[in-house]
Amino acid sequence: MTEMLSAAALAQAVRAGRLTPADVAERCAEAIRAQEGEVRAFASLDLDALTAKATSPGLAETPLAGLPVGIKDILDTVDFPTERGSPLYAGYRPATDAAIVRMTARAGGLMAGKTVTTEFAFMQPSPTRNPRRLSHSPGGSSAGSAAAVAAGMLPVTIGTQTGGSVIRPASYCGVTGYKPSYKMLPVLGLKPFSWSLDTLGLFGAHVADVAFAAGAISGRDFALDHDANAPRIAVAKTARAHLATEDAHAALEQAARAAERAGASVTVVDLSEAVEKGDEAHAAMQGYEAALALAHEWDHHREALSPTLGTYLEEAMRITPEQYDAGRRLARQSRHALSDLFADYDALLTFSATGEAPEGFATTGSPAFNRLWTMSGAPCINVTGLTGATGLPIGVQLVGRFGRDRALLEAARFLERAIGA
Amino acid sequence: MTEMLSAAALAQAVRAGRLTPADVAERCAEAIRAQEGEVRAFASLDLDALTAKATSPGLAETPLAGLPVGIKDILDTVDFPTERGSPLYAGYRPATDAAIVRMTARAGGLMAGKTVTTEFAFMQPSPTRNPRRLSHSPGGSSAGSAAAVAAGMLPVTIGTQTGGSVIRPASYCGVTGYKPSYKMLPVLGLKPFSWSLDTLGLFGAHVADVAFAAGAISGRDFALDHDANAPRIAVAKTARAHLATEDAHAALEQAARAAERAGASVTVVDLSEAVEKGDEAHAAMQGYEAALALAHEWDHHREALSPTLGTYLEEAMRITPEQYDAGRRLARQSRHALSDLFADYDALLTFSATGEAPEGFATTGSPAFNRLWTMSGAPCINVTGLTGATGLPIGVQLVGRFGRDRALLEAARFLERAIGA
Repeated sequence: MTEMLSAAALAQAVRAGRLTPADVAERCAEAIRAQEGEVRAFASLDLDALTAKATSPGLAETPLAGLPVGIKDILDTVDFPTERGSPLYAGYRPATDAAIVRMTARAGGLMAGKTVTTEFAFMQPSPTRNPRRLSHSPGGSSAGSAAAVAAGMLPVTIGTQTGGSVIRPASYCGVTGYKPSYKMLPVLGLKPFSWSLDTLGLFGAHVADVAFAAGAISGRDFALDHDANAPRIAVAKTARAHLATEDAHAALEQAARAAERAGASVTVVDLSEAVEKGDEAHAAMQGYEAALALAHEWDHHREALSPTLGTYLEEAMRITPEQYDAGRRLARQSRHALSDLFADYDALLTFSATGEAPEGFATTGSPAFNRLWTMSGAPCINVTGLTGATGLPIGVQLVGRFGRDRALLEAARFLERAIGA
Repeated sequence: MTEMLSAAALAQAVRAGRLTPADVAERCAEAIRAQEGEVRAFASLDLDALTAKATSPGLAETPLAGLPVGIKDILDTVDFPTERGSPLYAGYRPATDAAIVRMTARAGGLMAGKTVTTEFAFMQPSPTRNPRRLSHSPGGSSAGSAAAVAAGMLPVTIGTQTGGSVIRPASYCGVTGYKPSYKMLPVLGLKPFSWSLDTLGLFGAHVADVAFAAGAISGRDFALDHDANAPRIAVAKTARAHLATEDAHAALEQAARAAERAGASVTVVDLSEAVEKGDEAHAAMQGYEAALALAHEWDHHREALSPTLGTYLEEAMRITPEQYDAGRRLARQSRHALSDLFADYDALLTFSATGEAPEGFATTGSPAFNRLWTMSGAPCINVTGLTGATGLPIGVQLVGRFGRDRALLEAARFLERAIGA
């Protein structure tokens, strides 16, 4: 497998004149030509257009320095079909780009193609393979975005998370996945699944890469402080700890010990019931909203939905507004209780997924360790560097305080280094 | 002018067998044929289809009893063009219906047509006239939705509010406008302007009518309690009170006195600085988000935007992410401070607009008394029954506690009766 591409390093090389944007595009195109046949990370792709765009003048001076970017096919693009992982939208061309596509273009990123999404970003497995072992799932729903980075085909990709669709595939594919605070990046032009939960995310090789890309695209100052204090970390296994495999527990333990050795304060905490209840809230919110988000498809094209999605929506439609409102109240209480916890800690350390990537393609894996954090709106990062029983990656997840994304990125880089040391 | 149509009374008559859905559709069609030439409330209209749909079996037993409904043309519809008040979308047909369109259809409402929106629901005046005096503005941006109800052409219309686009036109046109709590009704399929602020709203003749329609469409129990306690009302003129005309002050005073006479406790309050700061927050949030929501149109079709909108976006693009984030923090603080206030009061009574509808069509009027409440996410209602110096309607606004929509509707009905007494 090709080595992963570091977005931060490539941009620096372009800015220093050691590489041109055309060189970078060519490197990506080569990796894609070599591996896409097996990995199947792309829903659509235009390498000729990418090569042509890469020669535009002035790209090297842009925030993204002309880096090629992959966009999950659940997001609207005018220049590429937007098929949403569903035959219902075969060849569909939206009238406008998603806001994140415009932001990426304005920042000097070059659209390489659309990365594979599961059907409407839900649980039906996609054709994408895990580049770390092709017989295994890359996870979902941002399957193509995680795989394209893992395979060294692209330095930056955009995904989305409603349950666990950024952090879980990042863990399975051994890449860094970053789900920013809710609403930090705009979801306009995303085919919604659950508007209270749908969150954009970024994939890159390492923490510095997603920090660089998020800063460049959003215009925020995410230059990481090299002298940042060692973080105060709370290890929170959650009420669902029993769902994690032995090697996932071992990885979490390793990460905690590495952080401690590197100077972090590490405390094991039990989450309060109020925080944990957010997990229940997620189910009611996602179900009620998905039944409305896909109302048109359900009312007119039910037969074209996968059984996985169809069955889910059928049950979801029974959620009453009262249950939904009760879920939203639980969610609010959970967010408040979580925010109290951050008075004493800079980041929570927890599982990214239940274990290694599942073998075969019957499932995209479980979002059991992601739903609560998506619901909370808090920023999350999958930190790489550890492996499971069979040698596949097992990531660990850091969760930060809402709106304090830079502090979380700094803590994640600290942990990444500690694990690598 | 035709008398307004009461949605609640019509539905009751249909259910009791005194009217058929076809009778109601015909009554609407007659009013539309008589008045649409002058009022111009519709962006598109299909009376033949309405008449045909009204004969479908089983309609009388649906929650909306087959009532005709108008949908603001900023919301996606498959059966009607969705032009968003912009030549850029002339004849545009989206792939799916907006969620509220599906909810309305599922509840047994019949789409009569699309009601006029200002360009992308911003401030550029539309062709719609105020049915109460055709030489005057109906307000914006839900101009057609407010005018269609005021002219007795439809019993229920859907609008949206980002600044003051439900409450202000309701006040100008003398109809009841109800902006529910943020996210109570889904905005999916709305062309976004500002995703933290965009909120759906309903127009009807009286409070009972919007309560009936909101309950029928959302499946929530909004049957008003006839024995509800007299509300504890706080009169809050806000830091912008000097922008209200003398007759707007007089109307607010009249409303407060009427409520008091009817048994409500009425207290004049000053809003804390924390609450008032939400008004500043609105500007940063709306600007930053609008610049992204219309990024595609700006990047590719700038020349097709009105000068009003183009100038706004040009300035909005200068808002930095840091200013946006600061605005969001102010917003959060303002919401918390407002929520504290509701420990002691059931509703705030304030201005709906600065005064009567403006003469002519140079402006849609000022949202000065609406932005803070849109930002807060709190439910708001324009209560009718009072008039200004020249005899045009002047509404007053009741603001409720977030998520307590039924309590607000009950307080509004109390006030409406008190004013009418």
